[in-house]
Amino acid sequence: MHAEVTDARDPVLSCAAELSLRALRRLPHVQPGDDLAALIDAGLRAESLELADCDVLVVCSKIIAKAEGQYLDLSTLTPSAAAHELAGRSGKDPRLVEAVLADSSRVSRVAREALIVQHQGGHVSANAGIDQSNVRPPSAAAGSGPWVLRLPRDADASAERLRLQLSAAWGVRLAIVVSDSFGRPFRKGTVGTAIGCAGIEPLFDQRGATDLFGRTLEHTITATADQLAAAADLIAGQADESRPVVRVRGLLFRASATPASALCRAPNEDLYL
Amino acid sequence: MHAEVTDARDPVLSCAAELSLRALRRLPHVQPGDDLAALIDAGLRAESLELADCDVLVVCSKIIAKAEGQYLDLSTLTPSAAAHELAGRSGKDPRLVEAVLADSSRVSRVAREALIVQHQGGHVSANAGIDQSNVRPPSAAAGSGPWVLRLPRDADASAERLRLQLSAAWGVRLAIVVSDSFGRPFRKGTVGTAIGCAGIEPLFDQRGATDLFGRTLEHTITATADQLAAAADLIAGQADESRPVVRVRGLLFRASATPASALCRAPNEDLYL
Repeated sequence: MHAEVTDARDPVLSCAAELSLRALRRLPHVQPGDDLAALIDAGLRAESLELADCDVLVVCSKIIAKAEGQYLDLSTLTPSAAAHELAGRSGKDPRLVEAVLADSSRVSRVAREALIVQHQGGHVSANAGIDQSNVRPPSAAAGSGPWVLRLPRDADASAERLRLQLSAAWGVRLAIVVSDSFGRPFRKGTVGTAIGCAGIEPLFDQRGATDLFGRTLEHTITATADQLAAAADLIAGQADESRPVVRVRGLLFRASATPASALCRAPNEDLYL
Repeated sequence: MHAEVTDARDPVLSCAAELSLRALRRLPHVQPGDDLAALIDAGLRAESLELADCDVLVVCSKIIAKAEGQYLDLSTLTPSAAAHELAGRSGKDPRLVEAVLADSSRVSRVAREALIVQHQGGHVSANAGIDQSNVRPPSAAAGSGPWVLRLPRDADASAERLRLQLSAAWGVRLAIVVSDSFGRPFRKGTVGTAIGCAGIEPLFDQRGATDLFGRTLEHTITATADQLAAAADLIAGQADESRPVVRVRGLLFRASATPASALCRAPNEDLYL
């Protein structure tokens, strides 16, 4: 089994018949400046969980953001006029809106209790992924808060660093998916969604393959990385974030340097909106 | 391990640390009138795959639709004026548009190559899920075609029938999720999505639970059934539909009679649009 397959149309890639997901049971609370790869590595070894070729590690964005120190003390922000205006329409704290706008490239929708924006990384979600859950200010911080946690600075780059370090430590070829829980249009509930990846093609393009009866498939592109994030979220233990790292074994995937932003549709190409 | 848990806030429900997915490797081509539960049962036994308490079977909607004979010969349809008008705007076959409208409760978006509608079952997708891939007219049919396949008539009812039959055959408590591959706004690629379910609460509501630091979670509702569908799709073999049944083992979930339409947001409550 090898991640790199040259035939872009090889249907075997999605046709493994078994998949096993295993969450790391224990990981210390991540602190700013921590070497996250080293923490994950130690956690794996402590649980006698090895890594093998073609394993995918799905890592919650929050622990990456914590290691990167992406904390923000809202009391230090001075909201702009635009932030005040959007805060009035959405009912949100103007300082939170200021933080959201600073991380966003576009506001998609504003309504009561909703501020849906496109993060600078390309992904559309509520509040640019800025979160107040499971956030404790770093110990060295003196501000009064409230504290929030931003998304990782560059989730693809974070994924690539984890991939390089963990691949080297285990002498294997890995892929990394950085996940976040996103709401979505049309449907209730959040689903794990890929906001960063490394070593795996986030989209599996089967266009040109043929169906059971020889008819060429026209529209079959699967969001593999998103599906990995959703699968991992089933055992990630969202409320208490007890399981922020999940090893997925058994998937046949294409190695790639494509960023997770390849999953994002440009607004003018969005047939659903 | 038991599916029925009374404490609605029990975080253990999402915190199993291991999950295994196993696709049925072989299943005969499903024909109209087939007893799908019996076919799946025979397939499981042929592969020595047993069912146990709390297993979830994720079943592709297409084989259910085929068993239910949801084929339609487009040449038999006479498009309405509305269908002609939408066909002009979308570039689609007016007969296909007629079929889509007949199965829809609302048109969400019309653009070139896109007809996004709300199916009568509540789920929003392209073309009401009507599909031309992997569709072969039933042998007894005489029409000239082209043939398409509609979604199952009532995917929750189909799921419940499968649940009752297979639970009885194995003497265990199962859950069933009926999946379809949906495109979505904001993001490229399709993801497995739940359009029917039985025996499992499709949404896992953790509101009221507390986070790591005792802060009450406000917005944490997870779309468990959708995540199961997405996970199964990773090994379902979309192009040739070689693996339309996936057994998921290890999830702790809440037994429920809630239909999958509970996952659908009403348009006036959709904060993302």
